[in-house]
Amino acid sequence: MSKVERILSVKDQACKAHKASKKLAVLETAEKDRALQVVADRLEAEYKTILQANELDLEAGRRNHFDDAYMDRLALTKERIAEFAQGLRNVIALQDPSGVVKSEWTLENGLHVQQVSVPLGVIGMIYEARPNVTVDATGLALKSGNTIILKGGSSAIYSNQAIVEIMRCALEETKIPKEAVQFIASTDRETTKQLFTMKEYIDVLIPRGGGQLIQTVVENATVPVLETGVGNCHIYVDKEADVEKAIQIIVNAKTDRPAVCNAAETLLVHKAWLDLHHDRLINAFQQHGIHAFADEYALPFIPRADKATEDDWANEFLSRDIAVKTVDSVLEAVEHIERYGTKHSEAIVTENEQHAEIFMKLVDAAALYHNASTRFTDGGALGFGAEIGISTQKLHARGPMGLHALTTVKYIMRGSGHIR
Amino acid sequence: MSKVERILSVKDQACKAHKASKKLAVLETAEKDRALQVVADRLEAEYKTILQANELDLEAGRRNHFDDAYMDRLALTKERIAEFAQGLRNVIALQDPSGVVKSEWTLENGLHVQQVSVPLGVIGMIYEARPNVTVDATGLALKSGNTIILKGGSSAIYSNQAIVEIMRCALEETKIPKEAVQFIASTDRETTKQLFTMKEYIDVLIPRGGGQLIQTVVENATVPVLETGVGNCHIYVDKEADVEKAIQIIVNAKTDRPAVCNAAETLLVHKAWLDLHHDRLINAFQQHGIHAFADEYALPFIPRADKATEDDWANEFLSRDIAVKTVDSVLEAVEHIERYGTKHSEAIVTENEQHAEIFMKLVDAAALYHNASTRFTDGGALGFGAEIGISTQKLHARGPMGLHALTTVKYIMRGSGHIR
Repeated sequence: MSKVERILSVKDQACKAHKASKKLAVLETAEKDRALQVVADRLEAEYKTILQANELDLEAGRRNHFDDAYMDRLALTKERIAEFAQGLRNVIALQDPSGVVKSEWTLENGLHVQQVSVPLGVIGMIYEARPNVTVDATGLALKSGNTIILKGGSSAIYSNQAIVEIMRCALEETKIPKEAVQFIASTDRETTKQLFTMKEYIDVLIPRGGGQLIQTVVENATVPVLETGVGNCHIYVDKEADVEKAIQIIVNAKTDRPAVCNAAETLLVHKAWLDLHHDRLINAFQQHGIHAFADEYALPFIPRADKATEDDWANEFLSRDIAVKTVDSVLEAVEHIERYGTKHSEAIVTENEQHAEIFMKLVDAAALYHNASTRFTDGGALGFGAEIGISTQKLHARGPMGLHALTTVKYIMRGSGHIR
Repeated sequence: MSKVERILSVKDQACKAHKASKKLAVLETAEKDRALQVVADRLEAEYKTILQANELDLEAGRRNHFDDAYMDRLALTKERIAEFAQGLRNVIALQDPSGVVKSEWTLENGLHVQQVSVPLGVIGMIYEARPNVTVDATGLALKSGNTIILKGGSSAIYSNQAIVEIMRCALEETKIPKEAVQFIASTDRETTKQLFTMKEYIDVLIPRGGGQLIQTVVENATVPVLETGVGNCHIYVDKEADVEKAIQIIVNAKTDRPAVCNAAETLLVHKAWLDLHHDRLINAFQQHGIHAFADEYALPFIPRADKATEDDWANEFLSRDIAVKTVDSVLEAVEHIERYGTKHSEAIVTENEQHAEIFMKLVDAAALYHNASTRFTDGGALGFGAEIGISTQKLHARGPMGLHALTTVKYIMRGSGHIR
């Protein structure tokens, strides 16, 4: 295809998704649930087709020398595909977020007012690697009455394409038109950018992946964006922090899953606490293979630490590296977070309730923790049932986003000739 | 000032507003209310200063031959200034939208979760003409715990500057720092555009004014935008519309205040209804000075009508002009609205409940009316107590926006060493 043809093809897909959204918006919950059931069954039944396609992605990955962690995220098995299907069945069990009368009242003149939740319309999902996003995002979109345009990463292109084909084919037996799921197969960046400005067809863009992907979308899109997930999260260990709590929270937030956005990247520690408890901290670092980039005050305490540079305070290591910065007060910790944080998840460890309250009041972030690990910032962990991403923006949705984030409202007024 | 100096000065103001937002976010409701009271009293007391400044704007307006309606919106009197002050007192009476625990629960592991409303931070208000916006927006911002950067139109620059000076001076006697209200005095467009990208200091931009202003902000801003108010609103008169209701709704929606965004711009009318009731419609048009741009079918029925062009379907006349388009069904009306509407306010007049439900389900707009005038899309009319604007976007807030739209949430988790 020529460049012009590729662009026209994306526009055509967006237009189809838009038209399909009108049909989807009027379906009953039971019809949507039944369709998701059919899709789930079909994915499970046709796992071999998906595995064959996945093998092509894995071959390409090996040729490109992707690292083990990356290849692991990319690799599918019969069991993982069964998990995709189970994920869809879990979504079926959730409450339909659209069509809910959120509030209603009658004006003195008798005009009846309802605020009703409705689907956003068309969701543009731009993501990297993991093929599970293809299924998860489709399930959440369709359940909430939205259609979806999927633009996955090129490294999973064959897997994603196979998954989408099977899902669309399954939809043909249901009330949801197959046009409700669109997959952009082109890996050309210019073509992708077309999605950024198709305001007439796309209602929201959700980028999921690394910081650079998200920034590209935020800076270039005129379609509204739900910004997700870059997390430079801090643990502040106060002067009055309990030693056991502090150590277990630091270790958990840093090492439970270092590559995710709610992992801790910087330890802010009160000098007085470090003076007293550095032995325990160093033991924990050594035991769990944590490597520190420390400031001048902390450096002598920590064997094998490197000296931190300005860049380290802003770095999302996504590994067992951690920046260590010493402070003299909770306010100094708050100021550091204000300067370097990404408004994702921030924790304070302290037995002093007043210090905790200052932290909760002054730190500007989606999720704040007192004596708990930042790892809980997750739709599943907090009991949301499903998660479309973790919003680090303030408008529309902040923090873990469940199905509700994929809806907007309509005001519906019923009168009998009412005029003003 | 040189261009660089002007840009630095805007940056400095944004930075000050950002710093002040940290102080404002921790104030008690009573402290904010008391500050608004002081501001209201001072505006009323110093009305003469404001009138003097207003006279300079009026002189400039006369030199520029602004039309009467424009001059009327610009002109202040002692009474109008008293209304500004009363507006602030009304805001004091409203519930503080920030600091509200919106939901809370405890996970099985004992971690306590709260979702708490908090101010957005810094609001950038970009608006045209009317000086009342200067006072209204400041009141709503401060009440909800936000600071505000005001960029008003150049035609009201002296009035706005005087109002802001008095408000800031009054704030010096209160707990709200005067830096919470910033006024951009430069009328240079390049300087204004600096506001569009100051993501580190400004949390949301709210443009209020004509379509061009709003488009400029939407297309150029990387700061999130709350898009307000362009309204190409339709009245669809169904085959089964009651004649009395139809006529009074058309007349009210078109002529009550033709220059506002919830006024009707196009009449969609079922051919069968027009065949029967054109006499009544034409009488109403003549009696209320309504001039029509009609399609081919309607043209012969309406004396002195002009033939409608394609442009007329998209035109926000903001006058006593109206486009008249005949249709054969409610679905044709829905399709026309889908193509030309601005997702603001749309009405159907019919006694057929099923047609009304189709309209409510299929039309994608912030406010939908059955047998009522589109003029009710207004925070005051619907009982919101205050209005920061009418959102025509789907994310964050849709329709009339009250104080609540100026807040976001924080998740606050309290544990006792909880890890995942």
